[in-house]
Amino acid sequence: MTATPILAFDVFGTVVDWHGSIAREVQGLYPQVDGDAFALAWRAGYQPAMQRVRSGELGWTRIDDLHRMILDELLPRFGLAHLGEAERDHLNRVWHRLDPWPDTVCGLQRLKTRHTICSLSNGNLGLLTHMAKRAGLPWDCVLSAEVFHAYKPDPRTYLGVADVFRVAPGQVMLVAAHHDDLAAARACGLATAYVERPLEFGAARPKDVSPDAANTLHARDLMDLADQLGC
Amino acid sequence: MTATPILAFDVFGTVVDWHGSIAREVQGLYPQVDGDAFALAWRAGYQPAMQRVRSGELGWTRIDDLHRMILDELLPRFGLAHLGEAERDHLNRVWHRLDPWPDTVCGLQRLKTRHTICSLSNGNLGLLTHMAKRAGLPWDCVLSAEVFHAYKPDPRTYLGVADVFRVAPGQVMLVAAHHDDLAAARACGLATAYVERPLEFGAARPKDVSPDAANTLHARDLMDLADQLGC
Repeated sequence: MTATPILAFDVFGTVVDWHGSIAREVQGLYPQVDGDAFALAWRAGYQPAMQRVRSGELGWTRIDDLHRMILDELLPRFGLAHLGEAERDHLNRVWHRLDPWPDTVCGLQRLKTRHTICSLSNGNLGLLTHMAKRAGLPWDCVLSAEVFHAYKPDPRTYLGVADVFRVAPGQVMLVAAHHDDLAAARACGLATAYVERPLEFGAARPKDVSPDAANTLHARDLMDLADQLGC
Repeated sequence: MTATPILAFDVFGTVVDWHGSIAREVQGLYPQVDGDAFALAWRAGYQPAMQRVRSGELGWTRIDDLHRMILDELLPRFGLAHLGEAERDHLNRVWHRLDPWPDTVCGLQRLKTRHTICSLSNGNLGLLTHMAKRAGLPWDCVLSAEVFHAYKPDPRTYLGVADVFRVAPGQVMLVAAHHDDLAAARACGLATAYVERPLEFGAARPKDVSPDAANTLHARDLMDLADQLGC
């Protein structure tokens, strides 16, 4: 690894707080709904929906559309079957309006001073761009599964970042709060940094954030990562 | 067109000064070479090289690689056939180090306050990202022919921007200093803004920057465009 690898960031959970953001917005719009349960149920549909694409059952489909398919199934279970098209579309775009963790913007700004920083998310380009603009995420480049037409953990995504920047895989470091994502990146030869996000699933469900020695770095948050990388 | 279209920018010539940047760097590295002639000759190989990709003679090839093929042909004509691999690679990356026009960074910052701004260049993602980081171009999203696997003026590029942001083509405005690029975008239903860059080919060859009434807007530079768009 060079002294200044490209840093590629997982986004949902690592950079932004999907659970808190969705729970707050749903609770605000529909006070009768349990926002915490709604956020968890929506996210629970995420991997199965992507699996339908990975397996070939669905052709290439953007996360915006997968989120909407899951949402449409979800609404009746939460007493919201009556929502019309405009309300569904607005609610679906809550994924464009996720709030960053408190350390995110400052951490990314520090990391950006010495590294090229990009997203590497299964979220689509439009979603990631809207999110970055609203939240002030200072990406040097927005990269997405949409660019590679493959979802993480497909190797084409991790190797795609190295290819875009024409560097060896070991000169890219994936930064993520999920050990499975990092393990898949490592299998492609990338360096990896785990970021603790104990509240990813809400304060009621603290996540195990134990280190995995296989990772190159283990950071409390993005400020800590900037410290460790000397930024 | 909505009040706040997505603004997609041509880059080489519109946002950055390829001629002046290359002439200066070549002249600095190799004082015996006519930097002006070298820059013009390199750029003259650009459309023919892309045509080899468009015609199918070459498979999908990034601009970095096309630039290098042209460069290798060019060097003997300028007495630089002796350059080794490292020198050629460094020189080829001058396209990553192009300087913005004096109004560019401030103009983009103003435009960004009310619009989503992205590149739409035939340059590859790595090139555009390095350029933006060095020059301080504050893109909300770096889009490139590389994302759509087609070079402008292929309709897939212009319509691809609308698709990424899930808007109608008329809600995207292409900003460019080249009437042919704008005409192709217009044929796809995009709004268009022409930007005067009279010195694109150097001070010795002032370019005709007459308006074409078919364009939505005609701007002296990006500050003028920001004025016209109320930013």
